[in-house]
Amino acid sequence: MRQYYRYRQTFTLESGLTLPEITIAYDTFGQLNADRSNAVWVMHALTADSDVSEWWPHTVEQGRFLDPDRWFVICANVLGSCYGTTGPTSINPITGKAYGHSFPDVTVRDMVNCHKLLAEHLGIKRINTIIGSSLGGFQAIEWLVDNPEIADRAVLIATDYQCHPWLAAINKAMYMAIEADPTSRSDGPNAGHKGLAAARAIALLSYRGQHAYDVTQKDAADKTDPFEKRVHSYQAYQGEKLCKRFDVNSYLKMCRSADSHDIGRGRNGCDEAARRIAARCLVIAISSDILFPTAYHRQLVKMIPQAEYQEIESEFAHDGFLIENEILNRIISDFYVRTDTCRNSNNTEL
Amino acid sequence: MRQYYRYRQTFTLESGLTLPEITIAYDTFGQLNADRSNAVWVMHALTADSDVSEWWPHTVEQGRFLDPDRWFVICANVLGSCYGTTGPTSINPITGKAYGHSFPDVTVRDMVNCHKLLAEHLGIKRINTIIGSSLGGFQAIEWLVDNPEIADRAVLIATDYQCHPWLAAINKAMYMAIEADPTSRSDGPNAGHKGLAAARAIALLSYRGQHAYDVTQKDAADKTDPFEKRVHSYQAYQGEKLCKRFDVNSYLKMCRSADSHDIGRGRNGCDEAARRIAARCLVIAISSDILFPTAYHRQLVKMIPQAEYQEIESEFAHDGFLIENEILNRIISDFYVRTDTCRNSNNTEL
Repeated sequence: MRQYYRYRQTFTLESGLTLPEITIAYDTFGQLNADRSNAVWVMHALTADSDVSEWWPHTVEQGRFLDPDRWFVICANVLGSCYGTTGPTSINPITGKAYGHSFPDVTVRDMVNCHKLLAEHLGIKRINTIIGSSLGGFQAIEWLVDNPEIADRAVLIATDYQCHPWLAAINKAMYMAIEADPTSRSDGPNAGHKGLAAARAIALLSYRGQHAYDVTQKDAADKTDPFEKRVHSYQAYQGEKLCKRFDVNSYLKMCRSADSHDIGRGRNGCDEAARRIAARCLVIAISSDILFPTAYHRQLVKMIPQAEYQEIESEFAHDGFLIENEILNRIISDFYVRTDTCRNSNNTEL
Repeated sequence: MRQYYRYRQTFTLESGLTLPEITIAYDTFGQLNADRSNAVWVMHALTADSDVSEWWPHTVEQGRFLDPDRWFVICANVLGSCYGTTGPTSINPITGKAYGHSFPDVTVRDMVNCHKLLAEHLGIKRINTIIGSSLGGFQAIEWLVDNPEIADRAVLIATDYQCHPWLAAINKAMYMAIEADPTSRSDGPNAGHKGLAAARAIALLSYRGQHAYDVTQKDAADKTDPFEKRVHSYQAYQGEKLCKRFDVNSYLKMCRSADSHDIGRGRNGCDEAARRIAARCLVIAISSDILFPTAYHRQLVKMIPQAEYQEIESEFAHDGFLIENEILNRIISDFYVRTDTCRNSNNTEL
């Protein structure tokens, strides 16, 4: 159920810039139990919204790792996005107009600070499990470092502990495509659509990779036009599809927040930051992910005091985190069982 | 030495469209021997020119595989490019103005037909070794299929027998970035620079891949601005650099010719086409190449009657074909020795 928390106070960003107030759009599934111990917080990726049951198929279902009969599942739209939480398409209460270009850059830490406000609003002091994939994983890791007491457990999927140059290089190619479209500097309703479509086509390359494209986008054997390629239509279609549902300024804010991700900033580097993490972590990489390769995850596992590594064999590359929900369910459910037992036995020892 | 061959007759493209005449810019190194048996033809990749000694370091040197004391090395700028051979920046003799946008799309087969004209002009009926990397490899393979008698040997590096969906998907992202820049539809001298710069940034992602970016573009440990990434400057710089030396319409023609590549078109598919190849082929893949992965090359080796496979262990991905010239020299020189011997012993048997 979509809900809104309106925080009617000044929200100060990591940059020192402020927003006069913020709204946080969030969805919840299931019920918070009496001792408030069954909260599972899901962080969404780049262009998703707070309805995790919609964008992550077969997860918010009975017997699955977001089973609403067992868990109180929370997912909040992130700061800077365009699905209900304050962002470039929101009205600036000071000017009475949409922020548009004037919306400030936000960091992953700013996003986490919003999550903290919402947790406080919901009366949740400790989260059973934090789950994040991709940019959602960035937020999850950042929160675990920033506040080690916040969660018992975490599941970090197809993600990273800092924005590596590779991701920033992809981001920059997207910025350049958006900047090539002069309408992206206006604030009209169709502003920057050509640039945004191109950026999406670039992003998809990194989400799917060679194998997935070659397998799913083969040309018909009887095609005659040498210059016509089926995948051209696919790329164009995916670009247009995003333009219909996402704002170009929000897209830039999301990508720039990804650029900002670095758990080590101001904390003596990533190793020292990761050592703070108290939650038991399950780190899941996808074998064919070219955006966040398995090596990043193996490194993350080495850095976190209590972490285990699982690799999903999948041909869907980064997009596997959305597609491989059957395998994810098995791995995460096993992790629940294993770490539930462990916690119980610890309690018994007390 | 840069030379020009002006073919003052109508040149008919695969599409049926015609150019009233064409000029072919080419460089040669060394001397053609008396029996015209020492020609080595090098085909260049996307944005290179005919001066192979410049863009392929340490190859046109004594003791190297393009040793000018031994070989008569030829490299021609391809049709549609902007380095002397007829292309969008050339003057259309009918209008007296540069072709610009009106320049027709060209296929890899059209490029090969230009090479054939030049070979005839130079009096070369049989080439000792054809060498092509990337888009240059496309031309080499196409020529070997189209005219199996043209060459004794061929070296095919970091390339493909057809444009797979993966490459076409990358190309489409580049077209979308160029189309997002409305100046790309004009024909001014700086037309489409922002779009072209973005396209170059996209292409570089596919040439270098994750490892090369992460190793070479690390941020300084003491950086403080969360949004500043060293690789952003790098991507922007590389984009600007290409704009200074390449024309946006030529860039589109080059990419579209790559889209057109398919040795199987009109020949009952790639397998049947490849079976025509009579030359002894050395197929070289680069271990980390994400643009033309090793699997494409292994498939090519299976398809060509006389082919051997070599894989270069390199962290430079697709760009390895330019950088790993030491290893290439060793592998290709060995191939020369092995296949020279073979031909000699055949002669002895006669």
